[in-house]
Amino acid sequence: MSSVRHIRSLPDEAVLDAARAAILAVGWSRTTLTDVARRAGVSRMTLYRRWPDMRSLLADLMTREWTAAVAPALDARTADPLRRIVDGVVAAVQALRRNELLARITDVDPELLLPYLLDRRGRSQDLVVDQLTEQIRAAQRTGAVRLGKADLIAGSIVLAAHGFTLSAHTMLEGEQPPGSDVGRFDEELATMVERYLQP
Amino acid sequence: MSSVRHIRSLPDEAVLDAARAAILAVGWSRTTLTDVARRAGVSRMTLYRRWPDMRSLLADLMTREWTAAVAPALDARTADPLRRIVDGVVAAVQALRRNELLARITDVDPELLLPYLLDRRGRSQDLVVDQLTEQIRAAQRTGAVRLGKADLIAGSIVLAAHGFTLSAHTMLEGEQPPGSDVGRFDEELATMVERYLQP
Repeated sequence: MSSVRHIRSLPDEAVLDAARAAILAVGWSRTTLTDVARRAGVSRMTLYRRWPDMRSLLADLMTREWTAAVAPALDARTADPLRRIVDGVVAAVQALRRNELLARITDVDPELLLPYLLDRRGRSQDLVVDQLTEQIRAAQRTGAVRLGKADLIAGSIVLAAHGFTLSAHTMLEGEQPPGSDVGRFDEELATMVERYLQP
Repeated sequence: MSSVRHIRSLPDEAVLDAARAAILAVGWSRTTLTDVARRAGVSRMTLYRRWPDMRSLLADLMTREWTAAVAPALDARTADPLRRIVDGVVAAVQALRRNELLARITDVDPELLLPYLLDRRGRSQDLVVDQLTEQIRAAQRTGAVRLGKADLIAGSIVLAAHGFTLSAHTMLEGEQPPGSDVGRFDEELATMVERYLQP
């Protein structure tokens, strides 16, 4: 968690930008640390000292990217505390579906997603669960959300949201590319989360 | 869909049994059609005529396996039509989590799951959505389930169930192997589906 919150140095940001550009251009499996160092204009040694391999660099990039997409979306401006959580969850799912890095990874290197589905939460998933847990606790205090273990409820919403984020287009009739009109499923997700949270 | 419903010949079943045994023993990526033919006691030519490659054989095996696990589970015996759907969905998720072929694939060859999450529904997913759609329609007629497009509602439940099936253990504190006590999440899934369907 700590590396999400520490203030990254400017060169770090430039390296993550370079890695992002490389992955968008050629895909993760063809991106090397040497490419990234060249694109970022830093020495290979500087880069190796901070990230010994592409996997650790990718983990930091994913954390930055998903957090930047999801955290502001979850922070919806709706006044009603229950509606705020519902709107935030749907906006977060939509932000991830629209994210070009996620689209590229899903398309070219989807196996990179597997550890976060099958093995353990990533840092950005932790962050989302934590943020949602806080929102649920606050809404429980005002009586807007039913009582229950807030972290368990938050985790359950994230589990449900996985499918709506990654697979909604597979539920449309016929074969549909990712990004097809899945708005109907967003409305269902909103209904599902709202009813799940209601007192 | 048709190959789910046609009556498979006895040798077909024996070949699928042999493929299943081979995958459990050595994993999918190390299983060859030649191995399967030998285990099944049929000639390689017989096998090639029916399944030109391991992928088509695997698709038939997965369809048979997931359908056998999920279809009876979904068909819960509860009298109340709403409760019957809720119990069925939770039992289906539990049956898949307990399935040893799915556990083996998740462990050794998880990339085999990706097409069914990212590209298109498999035949057993079709079957589940169809079965659930029928149950929802019937329950809507009695007034036990809220009105709405039954296939959209069924698809949304399956999307939510994906995460509860594959990823619930990642939401437990600390790193947990698949099969850890995720009973708390099954209760949340039941609550979520019940509230989502209530009139």
